[in-house]
Amino acid sequence: MISNWHETINQRDISKLGSMLSENAVLHSPVIHTPIQGKKMVSMYLQAAFHTFLTDDFRYVKEFINGQTAVLEFQLTLNGIEVNGIDMITWNDDQQITEFKVMIRPFKALNMINDQMTAMLAKLQQQAAQ
Amino acid sequence: MISNWHETINQRDISKLGSMLSENAVLHSPVIHTPIQGKKMVSMYLQAAFHTFLTDDFRYVKEFINGQTAVLEFQLTLNGIEVNGIDMITWNDDQQITEFKVMIRPFKALNMINDQMTAMLAKLQQQAAQ
Repeated sequence: MISNWHETINQRDISKLGSMLSENAVLHSPVIHTPIQGKKMVSMYLQAAFHTFLTDDFRYVKEFINGQTAVLEFQLTLNGIEVNGIDMITWNDDQQITEFKVMIRPFKALNMINDQMTAMLAKLQQQAAQ
Repeated sequence: MISNWHETINQRDISKLGSMLSENAVLHSPVIHTPIQGKKMVSMYLQAAFHTFLTDDFRYVKEFINGQTAVLEFQLTLNGIEVNGIDMITWNDDQQITEFKVMIRPFKALNMINDQMTAMLAKLQQQAAQ
């Protein structure tokens, strides 16, 4: 599962996202408490995240696996601000993502990412409505 | 190393902290970018964290280990706000902590923890100066 994820990230291949998510996928954002529920909403959120996070210097720096959950630590620079965080990804026996949790530090980076993600989600929702 | 850490947390035993830290320990806070350097400063920060985080319902919910680094996911409620985060702990061959990184979500929890930690650090510094 995790090798698929790395491939998707390395290729910046958003089109693969849909097939990687379970119907009941849940996403826990670094910003809001209420989980984002269902394949459609999670997919839209991850699309916005792809557009926001996948700068040229985005990279995973550490990897931890326990059972069917992985923690991937990432690092990137955006608008001159260093962003550090983790993706915590859980998958089912069909190798589909069931849970996706993101945490970001430091505060300044979280603030900036929040602004960028809000703008990107609004843009994607507008496109979807057209 | 991690069993020592769990014991210290379970016993709320701050006195053990000093002996668990390497002289050159570095702490990466969820709030500020600049690392906190050296056993003395890291110890003071972790003392403040003990006082702030170790509510009755503080608990580690997931654990990941890769080599000499562990990721421990935690959960607690503070002032009615649910706090979720990770401790990423690295140790050396002498079983002493060399690096400690904390991430917290969601935004509201990070904000509240930041206020609490700032007040607690001020109090501890005042006590140390007396």
